[in-house]
Amino acid sequence: MKRSDRLIGMTNYVLEHPLQLISLPFLAEKYQAAKSSISEDLTIMNKMLQQEGIGYLESVAGAAGGVKYVPQYSKENSDQFINQLCDRLEDPNRLLPGGYLFMSDILGEPDTIRQIGRLFASEFASLGIEAVVTVATKGIPLAYAVASFLNVPVVIVRRDPKITEGSTVSINYVSGSSRKIQTMVLTKRSLKQGARVCIIDDFMKAGGTIDGMKSLLKEFDAQVAGIGVLAEAEDEEDERVVNDYTSLVKISNVDVRNQQIEVHKGNLFK
Amino acid sequence: MKRSDRLIGMTNYVLEHPLQLISLPFLAEKYQAAKSSISEDLTIMNKMLQQEGIGYLESVAGAAGGVKYVPQYSKENSDQFINQLCDRLEDPNRLLPGGYLFMSDILGEPDTIRQIGRLFASEFASLGIEAVVTVATKGIPLAYAVASFLNVPVVIVRRDPKITEGSTVSINYVSGSSRKIQTMVLTKRSLKQGARVCIIDDFMKAGGTIDGMKSLLKEFDAQVAGIGVLAEAEDEEDERVVNDYTSLVKISNVDVRNQQIEVHKGNLFK
Repeated sequence: MKRSDRLIGMTNYVLEHPLQLISLPFLAEKYQAAKSSISEDLTIMNKMLQQEGIGYLESVAGAAGGVKYVPQYSKENSDQFINQLCDRLEDPNRLLPGGYLFMSDILGEPDTIRQIGRLFASEFASLGIEAVVTVATKGIPLAYAVASFLNVPVVIVRRDPKITEGSTVSINYVSGSSRKIQTMVLTKRSLKQGARVCIIDDFMKAGGTIDGMKSLLKEFDAQVAGIGVLAEAEDEEDERVVNDYTSLVKISNVDVRNQQIEVHKGNLFK
Repeated sequence: MKRSDRLIGMTNYVLEHPLQLISLPFLAEKYQAAKSSISEDLTIMNKMLQQEGIGYLESVAGAAGGVKYVPQYSKENSDQFINQLCDRLEDPNRLLPGGYLFMSDILGEPDTIRQIGRLFASEFASLGIEAVVTVATKGIPLAYAVASFLNVPVVIVRRDPKITEGSTVSINYVSGSSRKIQTMVLTKRSLKQGARVCIIDDFMKAGGTIDGMKSLLKEFDAQVAGIGVLAEAEDEEDERVVNDYTSLVKISNVDVRNQQIEVHKGNLFK
Protein backbone atom coordinates (compact mmCIF):
# COMPACT_ATOMS: atom_id res chain seq x y z
CA MET A 1 0.00 0.00 0.00
CA LYS A 2 1.22 3.51 -0.77
CA ARG A 3 2.19 5.84 2.06
CA SER A 4 -0.61 8.30 1.24
CA ASP A 5 -3.23 5.53 1.44
CA ARG A 6 -1.69 4.12 4.59
CA LEU A 7 -1.68 7.45 6.37
CA ILE A 8 -5.41 7.92 5.80
CA GLY A 9 -6.27 4.42 7.02
CA MET A 10 -3.89 4.58 9.97
CA THR A 11 -5.05 8.04 11.07
CA ASN A 12 -8.61 6.75 11.25
CA TYR A 13 -7.54 3.56 13.05
CA VAL A 14 -5.31 5.28 15.60
CA LEU A 15 -7.86 8.00 16.44
CA GLU A 16 -10.56 5.35 16.95
CA HIS A 17 -8.41 3.40 19.42
CA PRO A 18 -7.18 5.93 22.00
CA LEU A 19 -5.02 4.76 24.92
CA GLN A 20 -4.78 1.31 23.39
CA LEU A 21 -1.42 -0.23 22.58
CA ILE A 22 -1.22 -0.77 18.82
CA SER A 23 1.70 -2.98 17.83
CA LEU A 24 3.94 -2.25 14.86
CA PRO A 25 3.59 -5.80 13.43
CA PHE A 26 -0.20 -5.42 13.55
CA LEU A 27 -0.08 -2.17 11.57
CA ALA A 28 2.53 -3.60 9.19
CA GLU A 29 0.21 -6.46 8.34
CA LYS A 30 -2.99 -4.41 8.23
CA TYR A 31 -1.47 -1.80 5.92
CA GLN A 32 0.89 -4.09 4.00
CA ALA A 33 4.16 -2.33 4.60
CA ALA A 34 7.54 -2.92 6.21
CA LYS A 35 7.79 -2.14 9.91
CA SER A 36 10.36 0.54 9.12
CA SER A 37 7.88 2.33 6.84
CA ILE A 38 5.12 2.09 9.46
CA SER A 39 7.54 3.51 11.98
CA GLU A 40 8.20 6.51 9.73
CA ASP A 41 4.44 6.97 9.21
CA LEU A 42 3.92 7.08 12.95
CA THR A 43 6.63 9.73 13.36
CA ILE A 44 4.86 11.91 10.80
CA MET A 45 1.50 11.24 12.49
CA ASN A 46 2.81 12.07 15.95
CA LYS A 47 4.11 15.44 14.73
CA MET A 48 0.86 16.24 12.93
CA LEU A 49 -1.45 15.27 15.81
CA GLN A 50 0.50 17.64 18.04
CA GLN A 51 0.35 20.37 15.43
CA GLU A 52 -3.44 19.93 15.21
CA GLY A 53 -3.56 20.12 19.01
CA ILE A 54 -5.45 16.85 19.53
CA GLY A 55 -2.84 14.65 21.22
CA TYR A 56 0.31 12.64 20.58
CA LEU A 57 1.58 9.11 20.04
CA GLU A 58 3.38 7.50 22.97
CA SER A 59 5.97 4.92 21.94
CA VAL A 60 6.16 1.73 23.94
CA ALA A 61 9.50 -0.04 23.41
CA GLY A 62 10.28 -3.76 23.41
CA ALA A 63 9.01 -6.92 21.75
CA ALA A 64 5.43 -6.23 22.88
CA GLY A 65 5.84 -2.59 21.94
CA GLY A 66 4.03 -0.24 19.65
CA VAL A 67 2.28 3.11 19.96
CA LYS A 68 -0.57 4.50 22.01
CA TYR A 69 -2.60 7.54 20.97
CA VAL A 70 -2.99 9.86 23.95
CA PRO A 71 -5.79 12.40 23.46
CA GLN A 72 -4.49 15.75 24.63
CA TYR A 73 -6.33 18.89 23.67
CA SER A 74 -3.93 21.80 23.20
CA LYS A 75 -4.22 24.89 25.41
CA GLU A 76 -5.14 26.93 22.35
CA ASN A 77 -7.97 24.60 21.31
CA SER A 78 -9.23 24.30 24.89
CA ASP A 79 -9.25 28.07 25.46
CA GLN A 80 -11.03 28.76 22.21
CA PHE A 81 -13.69 26.18 22.97
CA ILE A 82 -14.29 27.22 26.56
CA ASN A 83 -14.49 30.94 25.77
CA GLN A 84 -17.20 30.25 23.21
CA LEU A 85 -19.05 28.02 25.66
CA CYS A 86 -18.97 30.66 28.42
CA ASP A 87 -20.31 33.27 26.01
CA ARG A 88 -23.16 31.03 24.96
CA LEU A 89 -24.07 30.12 28.56
CA GLU A 90 -24.13 33.77 29.67
CA ASP A 91 -27.19 34.43 27.49
CA PRO A 92 -29.88 35.65 29.96
CA ASN A 93 -32.55 33.79 27.95
CA ARG A 94 -31.15 30.64 29.51
CA LEU A 95 -32.27 31.61 33.01
CA LEU A 96 -35.12 29.49 34.34
CA PRO A 97 -37.20 29.84 37.52
CA GLY A 98 -35.20 28.80 40.60
CA GLY A 99 -31.91 30.00 39.18
CA TYR A 100 -31.49 26.99 36.89
CA LEU A 101 -29.85 27.34 33.53
CA PHE A 102 -31.25 25.91 30.30
CA MET A 103 -28.40 23.90 28.74
CA SER A 104 -30.25 21.12 26.87
CA ASP A 105 -29.64 22.68 23.46
CA ILE A 106 -25.87 22.78 24.03
CA LEU A 107 -25.88 19.31 25.60
CA GLY A 108 -27.73 18.10 22.50
CA GLU A 109 -24.90 18.99 20.11
CA PRO A 110 -22.73 15.90 19.46
CA ASP A 111 -19.78 18.05 18.42
CA THR A 112 -19.86 20.14 21.62
CA ILE A 113 -20.26 17.02 23.74
CA ARG A 114 -17.29 15.47 21.98
CA GLN A 115 -15.10 18.46 22.72
CA ILE A 116 -16.15 18.43 26.37
CA GLY A 117 -15.27 14.74 26.44
CA ARG A 118 -11.89 15.49 24.93
CA LEU A 119 -11.15 18.13 27.58
CA PHE A 120 -11.93 15.79 30.48
CA ALA A 121 -10.11 12.90 28.79
CA SER A 122 -7.01 15.08 28.37
CA GLU A 123 -7.11 15.69 32.11
CA PHE A 124 -7.79 12.07 33.12
CA ALA A 125 -5.80 10.17 30.44
CA SER A 126 -2.88 9.43 32.78
CA LEU A 127 -4.96 8.22 35.73
CA GLY A 128 -5.47 4.62 34.64
CA ILE A 129 -9.27 4.94 34.58
CA GLU A 130 -11.12 1.65 33.97
CA ALA A 131 -14.71 2.97 33.77
CA VAL A 132 -16.60 6.26 33.60
CA VAL A 133 -19.50 6.51 36.06
CA THR A 134 -22.40 8.94 35.70
CA VAL A 135 -25.95 9.35 36.96
CA ALA A 136 -29.01 9.40 34.70
CA THR A 137 -29.99 11.45 32.70
CA LYS A 138 -28.07 14.56 31.70
CA GLY A 139 -24.59 13.31 32.45
CA ILE A 140 -24.95 10.34 30.09
CA PRO A 141 -23.81 11.90 26.80
CA LEU A 142 -20.87 13.58 28.54
CA ALA A 143 -19.84 10.30 30.16
CA TYR A 144 -19.87 8.52 26.79
CA ALA A 145 -17.80 11.25 25.20
CA VAL A 146 -15.17 11.00 27.94
CA ALA A 147 -15.27 7.20 27.79
CA SER A 148 -14.79 7.15 24.02
CA PHE A 149 -11.50 9.07 24.40
CA LEU A 150 -10.38 6.96 27.37
CA ASN A 151 -11.49 3.75 25.62
CA VAL A 152 -13.31 2.38 28.70
CA PRO A 153 -16.95 1.46 29.41
CA VAL A 154 -19.64 3.69 30.89
CA VAL A 155 -21.58 2.70 34.01
CA ILE A 156 -24.88 4.47 34.69
CA VAL A 157 -26.22 4.99 38.20
CA ARG A 158 -30.01 5.33 38.29
CA ARG A 159 -32.42 7.04 40.64
CA ASP A 160 -34.86 4.11 40.38
CA PRO A 161 -34.28 0.39 39.89
CA LYS A 162 -35.39 -0.99 36.54
CA ILE A 163 -36.82 -4.40 35.84
CA THR A 164 -34.49 -4.96 32.89
CA GLU A 165 -31.35 -4.65 34.98
CA GLY A 166 -31.22 -7.56 37.43
CA SER A 167 -30.09 -7.29 41.05
CA THR A 168 -28.86 -3.93 42.27
CA VAL A 169 -27.05 -2.24 45.13
CA SER A 170 -28.79 0.86 46.44
CA ILE A 171 -27.98 3.65 48.91
CA ASN A 172 -29.79 6.61 50.39
CA TYR A 173 -28.11 9.98 50.42
CA VAL A 174 -28.88 13.56 51.38
CA SER A 175 -29.12 16.00 48.51
CA GLY A 176 -26.67 18.79 49.37
CA SER A 177 -28.78 21.80 48.47
CA SER A 178 -32.35 20.65 49.10
CA ARG A 179 -31.51 18.44 52.13
CA LYS A 180 -33.93 15.79 50.86
CA ILE A 181 -33.23 12.08 51.25
CA GLN A 182 -32.86 10.40 47.88
CA THR A 183 -32.04 6.95 46.53
CA MET A 184 -29.47 5.78 44.00
CA VAL A 185 -29.02 2.32 42.54
CA LEU A 186 -26.36 0.54 40.53
CA THR A 187 -26.77 -2.87 38.92
CA LYS A 188 -24.48 -5.41 40.56
CA ARG A 189 -23.00 -6.78 37.39
CA SER A 190 -22.36 -3.41 35.80
CA LEU A 191 -19.09 -2.72 37.67
CA LYS A 192 -16.41 -5.16 38.79
CA GLN A 193 -15.10 -4.91 42.37
CA GLY A 194 -12.18 -2.57 42.96
CA ALA A 195 -12.31 -0.76 39.63
CA ARG A 196 -10.56 2.58 39.16
CA VAL A 197 -13.17 5.06 37.93
CA CYS A 198 -13.91 8.69 37.20
CA ILE A 199 -17.25 10.35 37.84
CA ILE A 200 -18.74 12.66 35.20
CA ASP A 201 -21.82 14.88 35.61
CA ASP A 202 -23.31 17.95 33.97
CA PHE A 203 -24.01 20.21 36.92
CA MET A 204 -22.87 20.50 40.54
CA LYS A 205 -24.46 22.70 43.14
CA ALA A 206 -23.53 21.62 46.67
CA GLY A 207 -22.32 18.26 45.35
CA GLY A 208 -24.76 15.96 47.17
CA THR A 209 -25.37 13.80 44.12
CA ILE A 210 -21.68 13.27 43.49
CA ASP A 211 -21.12 12.57 47.18
CA GLY A 212 -23.91 9.99 46.95
CA MET A 213 -22.23 8.39 43.95
CA LYS A 214 -18.99 8.16 45.91
CA SER A 215 -20.82 6.33 48.72
CA LEU A 216 -22.45 3.98 46.26
CA LEU A 217 -19.11 3.30 44.56
CA LYS A 218 -17.60 2.43 47.95
CA GLU A 219 -19.99 -0.55 48.00
CA PHE A 220 -18.15 -1.78 44.91
CA ASP A 221 -14.71 -1.02 46.45
CA ALA A 222 -14.18 1.34 43.51
CA GLN A 223 -11.44 3.96 43.64
CA VAL A 224 -12.62 7.35 42.42
CA ALA A 225 -9.54 8.71 40.62
CA GLY A 226 -11.21 11.81 39.17
CA ILE A 227 -14.43 13.82 39.24
CA GLY A 228 -15.44 16.01 36.31
CA VAL A 229 -18.41 18.37 36.13
CA LEU A 230 -19.31 20.51 33.15
CA ALA A 231 -20.68 23.38 35.26
CA GLU A 232 -20.40 24.22 38.94
CA ALA A 233 -22.59 26.77 40.72
CA GLU A 234 -20.13 29.10 42.43
CA ASP A 235 -22.84 30.58 44.66
CA GLU A 236 -23.12 27.26 46.51
CA GLU A 237 -19.42 27.02 47.26
CA ASP A 238 -19.84 27.40 51.04
CA GLU A 239 -22.13 24.39 51.33
CA ARG A 240 -20.02 22.19 49.10
CA VAL A 241 -19.58 18.59 50.23
CA VAL A 242 -17.21 17.57 47.40
CA ASN A 243 -13.83 19.26 47.09
CA ASP A 244 -11.61 17.40 44.71
CA TYR A 245 -13.18 17.90 41.28
CA THR A 246 -12.51 19.37 37.87
CA SER A 247 -15.00 21.85 36.40
CA LEU A 248 -15.12 23.34 32.92
CA VAL A 249 -17.22 26.39 33.76
CA LYS A 250 -18.30 28.24 36.90
CA ILE A 251 -21.72 29.85 37.06
CA SER A 252 -22.09 32.74 39.51
CA ASN A 253 -24.19 35.74 40.50
CA VAL A 254 -27.36 34.26 39.10
CA ASP A 255 -29.91 37.06 39.32
CA VAL A 256 -33.26 35.89 38.00
CA ARG A 257 -35.01 39.20 38.73
CA ASN A 258 -32.58 41.29 36.69
CA GLN A 259 -31.97 38.50 34.19
CA GLN A 260 -28.25 38.38 34.77
CA ILE A 261 -25.73 35.63 35.07
CA GLU A 262 -21.97 35.27 34.97
CA VAL A 263 -20.14 32.32 33.48
CA HIS A 264 -16.37 31.94 33.84
CA LYS A 265 -13.82 29.24 33.09
CA GLY A 266 -13.79 26.42 35.63
CA ASN A 267 -10.87 25.14 37.69
CA LEU A 268 -9.56 22.97 34.82
CA PHE A 269 -8.07 26.15 33.40
CA LYS A 270 -6.25 27.25 36.52
CA MET B 1 2.53 21.66 4.19
CA LYS B 2 3.65 18.27 2.87
CA ARG B 3 1.10 15.86 1.44
CA SER B 4 1.73 13.29 4.18
CA ASP B 5 1.06 15.89 6.91
CA ARG B 6 -1.98 17.21 5.09
CA LEU B 7 -3.53 13.79 4.68
CA ILE B 8 -3.36 13.14 8.43
CA GLY B 9 -4.88 16.49 9.33
CA MET B 10 -7.53 16.32 6.61
CA THR B 11 -8.54 12.75 7.46
CA ASN B 12 -9.20 13.81 11.02
CA TYR B 13 -11.05 16.95 9.92
CA VAL B 14 -13.22 15.24 7.32
CA LEU B 15 -14.19 12.33 9.60
CA GLU B 16 -15.15 14.76 12.37
CA HIS B 17 -17.49 16.71 10.05
CA PRO B 18 -19.74 14.14 8.38
CA LEU B 19 -22.48 15.28 5.97
CA GLN B 20 -21.13 18.81 6.11
CA LEU B 21 -20.03 20.60 2.94
CA ILE B 22 -16.32 21.33 3.22
CA SER B 23 -15.12 23.77 0.57
CA LEU B 24 -11.87 23.35 -1.34
CA PRO B 25 -10.71 26.93 -0.63
CA PHE B 26 -11.25 26.32 3.09
CA LEU B 27 -9.08 23.19 3.01
CA ALA B 28 -6.51 24.91 0.80
CA GLU B 29 -6.09 27.67 3.35
CA LYS B 30 -6.23 25.45 6.42
CA TYR B 31 -3.62 23.05 5.04
CA GLN B 32 -1.58 25.57 3.04
CA ALA B 33 -1.69 23.97 -0.35
CA ALA B 34 -2.94 24.69 -3.86
CA LYS B 35 -6.52 23.73 -4.59
CA SER B 36 -5.28 21.25 -7.19
CA SER B 37 -3.19 19.45 -4.56
CA ILE B 38 -6.13 19.38 -2.13
CA SER B 39 -8.28 17.97 -4.90
CA GLU B 40 -5.78 15.15 -5.44
CA ASP B 41 -5.66 14.50 -1.69
CA LEU B 42 -9.42 14.15 -1.62
CA THR B 43 -9.37 11.66 -4.49
CA ILE B 44 -6.90 9.51 -2.55
CA MET B 45 -8.99 9.88 0.60
CA ASN B 46 -12.22 8.95 -1.15
CA LYS B 47 -10.66 5.74 -2.45
CA MET B 48 -9.19 4.83 0.93
CA LEU B 49 -12.39 5.51 2.93
CA GLN B 50 -14.23 3.14 0.61
CA GLN B 51 -11.48 0.55 0.92
CA GLU B 52 -11.73 0.77 4.72
CA GLY B 53 -15.50 0.38 4.39
CA ILE B 54 -16.43 3.49 6.36
CA GLY B 55 -17.92 5.73 3.70
CA TYR B 56 -17.06 7.98 0.77
CA LEU B 57 -16.61 11.59 -0.26
CA GLU B 58 -19.38 13.15 -2.29
CA SER B 59 -18.24 15.93 -4.60
CA VAL B 60 -20.39 19.03 -4.85
CA ALA B 61 -19.59 21.01 -8.00
CA GLY B 62 -19.73 24.75 -8.57
CA ALA B 63 -18.43 27.93 -6.92
CA ALA B 64 -19.89 26.98 -3.54
CA GLY B 65 -18.72 23.41 -4.05
CA GLY B 66 -16.50 21.08 -2.12
CA VAL B 67 -16.81 17.63 -0.60
CA LYS B 68 -19.09 15.96 1.90
CA TYR B 69 -18.11 12.87 3.88
CA VAL B 70 -20.96 10.37 3.77
CA PRO B 71 -20.64 7.70 6.48
CA GLN B 72 -21.43 4.37 4.86
CA TYR B 73 -20.51 1.18 6.65
CA SER B 74 -19.60 -1.56 4.16
CA LYS B 75 -21.62 -4.76 4.02
CA GLU B 76 -18.55 -6.69 5.18
CA ASN B 77 -18.00 -4.47 8.24
CA SER B 78 -21.72 -4.46 9.07
CA ASP B 79 -22.04 -8.23 8.84
CA GLN B 80 -18.96 -8.86 10.94
CA PHE B 81 -20.19 -6.48 13.64
CA ILE B 82 -23.76 -7.76 13.75
CA ASN B 83 -22.77 -11.43 13.83
CA GLN B 84 -20.57 -10.78 16.86
CA LEU B 85 -23.35 -8.80 18.51
CA CYS B 86 -25.92 -11.58 17.96
CA ASP B 87 -23.51 -14.14 19.45
CA ARG B 88 -22.94 -12.03 22.52
CA LEU B 89 -26.66 -11.37 23.03
CA GLU B 90 -27.55 -15.06 22.77
CA ASP B 91 -25.69 -15.80 26.02
CA PRO B 92 -28.37 -17.32 28.34
CA ASN B 93 -26.79 -15.52 31.33
CA ARG B 94 -28.37 -12.36 29.93
CA LEU B 95 -31.91 -13.60 30.58
CA LEU B 96 -33.68 -11.74 33.37
CA PRO B 97 -37.06 -12.40 35.03
CA GLY B 98 -39.97 -11.41 32.75
CA GLY B 99 -38.09 -12.31 29.59
CA TYR B 100 -35.95 -9.16 29.60
CA LEU B 101 -32.41 -9.24 28.35
CA PHE B 102 -29.47 -7.73 30.20
CA MET B 103 -27.72 -5.46 27.66
CA SER B 104 -26.24 -2.71 29.86
CA ASP B 105 -22.69 -4.01 29.57
CA ILE B 106 -22.84 -3.93 25.77
CA LEU B 107 -24.61 -0.56 25.77
CA GLY B 108 -21.84 0.70 28.05
CA GLU B 109 -19.09 0.15 25.47
CA PRO B 110 -18.39 3.38 23.58
CA ASP B 111 -16.88 1.49 20.65
CA THR B 112 -19.93 -0.78 20.23
CA ILE B 113 -22.28 2.18 20.56
CA ARG B 114 -20.29 4.02 17.89
CA GLN B 115 -20.58 1.12 15.49
CA ILE B 116 -24.33 0.88 16.09
CA GLY B 117 -24.52 4.62 15.41
CA ARG B 118 -22.59 4.16 12.19
CA LEU B 119 -24.98 1.43 11.01
CA PHE B 120 -28.09 3.56 11.55
CA ALA B 121 -26.39 6.64 10.11
CA SER B 122 -25.48 4.68 6.96
CA GLU B 123 -29.16 3.86 6.62
CA PHE B 124 -30.46 7.37 7.35
CA ALA B 125 -27.71 9.54 5.80
CA SER B 126 -29.73 10.33 2.67
CA LEU B 127 -32.97 11.24 4.47
CA GLY B 128 -32.15 14.86 5.29
CA ILE B 129 -32.52 14.31 9.04
CA GLU B 130 -32.32 17.51 11.15
CA ALA B 131 -32.45 15.99 14.64
CA VAL B 132 -32.30 12.60 16.37
CA VAL B 133 -35.05 12.03 18.95
CA THR B 134 -34.87 9.44 21.72
CA VAL B 135 -36.50 8.74 25.07
CA ALA B 136 -34.61 8.63 28.36
CA THR B 137 -32.60 6.63 29.44
CA LYS B 138 -31.19 3.70 27.50
CA GLY B 139 -31.62 5.13 24.03
CA ILE B 140 -29.52 8.21 24.82
CA PRO B 141 -26.02 6.90 23.99
CA LEU B 142 -27.33 5.31 20.77
CA ALA B 143 -29.01 8.56 19.76
CA TYR B 144 -25.77 10.52 20.28
CA ALA B 145 -23.80 8.00 18.26
CA VAL B 146 -26.23 8.27 15.35
CA ALA B 147 -26.33 12.06 15.68
CA SER B 148 -22.55 12.35 15.63
CA PHE B 149 -22.43 10.61 12.23
CA LEU B 150 -25.38 12.62 10.89
CA ASN B 151 -23.97 15.85 12.36
CA VAL B 152 -27.29 16.94 13.88
CA PRO B 153 -28.48 17.60 17.46
CA VAL B 154 -30.11 15.11 19.84
CA VAL B 155 -33.49 15.81 21.45
CA ILE B 156 -34.43 13.81 24.53
CA VAL B 157 -38.04 13.01 25.44
CA ARG B 158 -38.53 12.43 29.17
CA ARG B 159 -41.02 10.46 31.19
CA ASP B 160 -41.24 13.22 33.80
CA PRO B 161 -40.92 17.01 33.50
CA LYS B 162 -37.77 18.47 35.07
CA ILE B 163 -37.47 21.83 36.75
CA THR B 164 -34.32 22.71 34.81
CA GLU B 165 -36.02 22.48 31.45
CA GLY B 166 -38.60 25.24 31.20
CA SER B 167 -42.03 24.86 29.64
CA THR B 168 -42.92 21.52 28.07
CA VAL B 169 -45.45 19.78 25.85
CA SER B 170 -46.74 16.50 27.25
CA ILE B 171 -48.93 13.67 26.02
CA ASN B 172 -50.43 10.51 27.47
CA TYR B 173 -50.06 7.24 25.61
CA VAL B 174 -50.86 3.59 26.08
CA SER B 175 -47.90 1.30 26.51
CA GLY B 176 -48.30 -1.39 23.83
CA SER B 177 -47.46 -4.48 25.86
CA SER B 178 -48.55 -3.57 29.39
CA ARG B 179 -51.62 -1.50 28.33
CA LYS B 180 -50.81 1.07 31.03
CA ILE B 181 -51.33 4.78 30.48
CA GLN B 182 -48.05 6.67 30.59
CA THR B 183 -46.83 10.23 30.12
CA MET B 184 -44.09 11.70 27.95
CA VAL B 185 -42.82 15.26 27.86
CA LEU B 186 -40.63 17.31 25.55
CA THR B 187 -39.29 20.77 26.33
CA LYS B 188 -40.82 23.35 24.02
CA ARG B 189 -37.60 25.00 23.00
CA SER B 190 -35.74 21.76 22.36
CA LEU B 191 -37.17 21.18 18.87
CA LYS B 192 -38.13 23.69 16.21
CA GLN B 193 -41.51 23.35 14.48
CA GLY B 194 -41.63 21.15 11.38
CA ALA B 195 -38.23 19.52 11.79
CA ARG B 196 -37.34 16.34 9.93
CA VAL B 197 -36.27 13.77 12.52
CA CYS B 198 -35.40 10.16 13.14
CA ILE B 199 -36.32 8.25 16.30
CA ILE B 200 -33.73 5.99 17.94
CA ASP B 201 -34.36 3.57 20.82
CA ASP B 202 -32.69 0.52 22.31
CA PHE B 203 -35.55 -1.96 22.54
CA MET B 204 -38.99 -2.37 20.97
CA LYS B 205 -41.64 -4.80 22.13
CA ALA B 206 -45.11 -3.86 20.85
CA GLY B 207 -43.86 -0.36 20.00
CA GLY B 208 -46.10 1.68 22.32
CA THR B 209 -43.27 3.96 23.41
CA ILE B 210 -42.25 4.76 19.86
CA ASP B 211 -45.89 5.29 18.91
CA GLY B 212 -46.14 7.70 21.85
CA MET B 213 -43.08 9.57 20.62
CA LYS B 214 -44.67 9.88 17.19
CA SER B 215 -47.78 11.43 18.76
CA LEU B 216 -45.66 13.82 20.81
CA LEU B 217 -43.64 14.80 17.73
CA LYS B 218 -46.89 15.56 15.90
CA GLU B 219 -47.39 18.39 18.42
CA PHE B 220 -44.19 19.90 17.02
CA ASP B 221 -45.28 19.26 13.41
CA ALA B 222 -42.17 17.12 13.08
CA GLN B 223 -41.80 14.66 10.20
CA VAL B 224 -40.53 11.27 11.32
CA ALA B 225 -38.30 10.21 8.41
CA GLY B 226 -36.86 7.11 10.06
CA ILE B 227 -37.16 4.89 13.13
CA GLY B 228 -34.25 2.80 14.35
CA VAL B 229 -34.26 0.27 17.20
CA LEU B 230 -31.27 -1.74 18.32
CA ALA B 231 -33.35 -4.81 19.26
CA GLU B 232 -36.91 -5.84 18.50
CA ALA B 233 -38.77 -8.60 20.33
CA GLU B 234 -40.05 -10.87 17.56
CA ASP B 235 -42.46 -12.65 19.92
CA GLU B 236 -44.55 -9.47 20.16
CA GLU B 237 -44.89 -9.02 16.41
CA ASP B 238 -48.66 -9.65 16.37
CA GLU B 239 -49.38 -6.79 18.77
CA ARG B 240 -47.06 -4.35 17.05
CA VAL B 241 -48.37 -0.79 16.67
CA VAL B 242 -45.35 0.52 14.73
CA ASN B 243 -44.55 -0.93 11.32
CA ASP B 244 -42.06 1.19 9.49
CA TYR B 245 -38.81 0.79 11.43
CA THR B 246 -35.25 -0.44 11.08
CA SER B 247 -33.93 -3.00 13.58
CA LEU B 248 -30.39 -4.29 14.03
CA VAL B 249 -31.28 -7.51 15.84
CA LYS B 250 -34.40 -9.60 16.43
CA ILE B 251 -34.84 -11.42 19.72
CA SER B 252 -37.13 -14.46 19.65
CA ASN B 253 -38.17 -17.62 21.45
CA VAL B 254 -37.22 -16.26 24.84
CA ASP B 255 -37.57 -19.21 27.19
CA VAL B 256 -36.70 -18.19 30.74
CA ARG B 257 -37.43 -21.63 32.21
CA ASN B 258 -34.99 -23.46 29.92
CA GLN B 259 -32.62 -20.51 29.76
CA GLN B 260 -32.78 -20.21 26.00
CA ILE B 261 -32.96 -17.33 23.63
CA GLU B 262 -32.46 -16.73 19.92
CA VAL B 263 -30.95 -13.59 18.44
CA HIS B 264 -30.92 -12.98 14.68
CA LYS B 265 -30.06 -10.11 12.37
CA GLY B 266 -32.73 -7.43 12.21
CA ASN B 267 -34.54 -6.09 9.15
CA LEU B 268 -31.67 -3.67 8.31
CA PHE B 269 -29.87 -6.68 6.82
CA LYS B 270 -32.71 -7.82 4.58
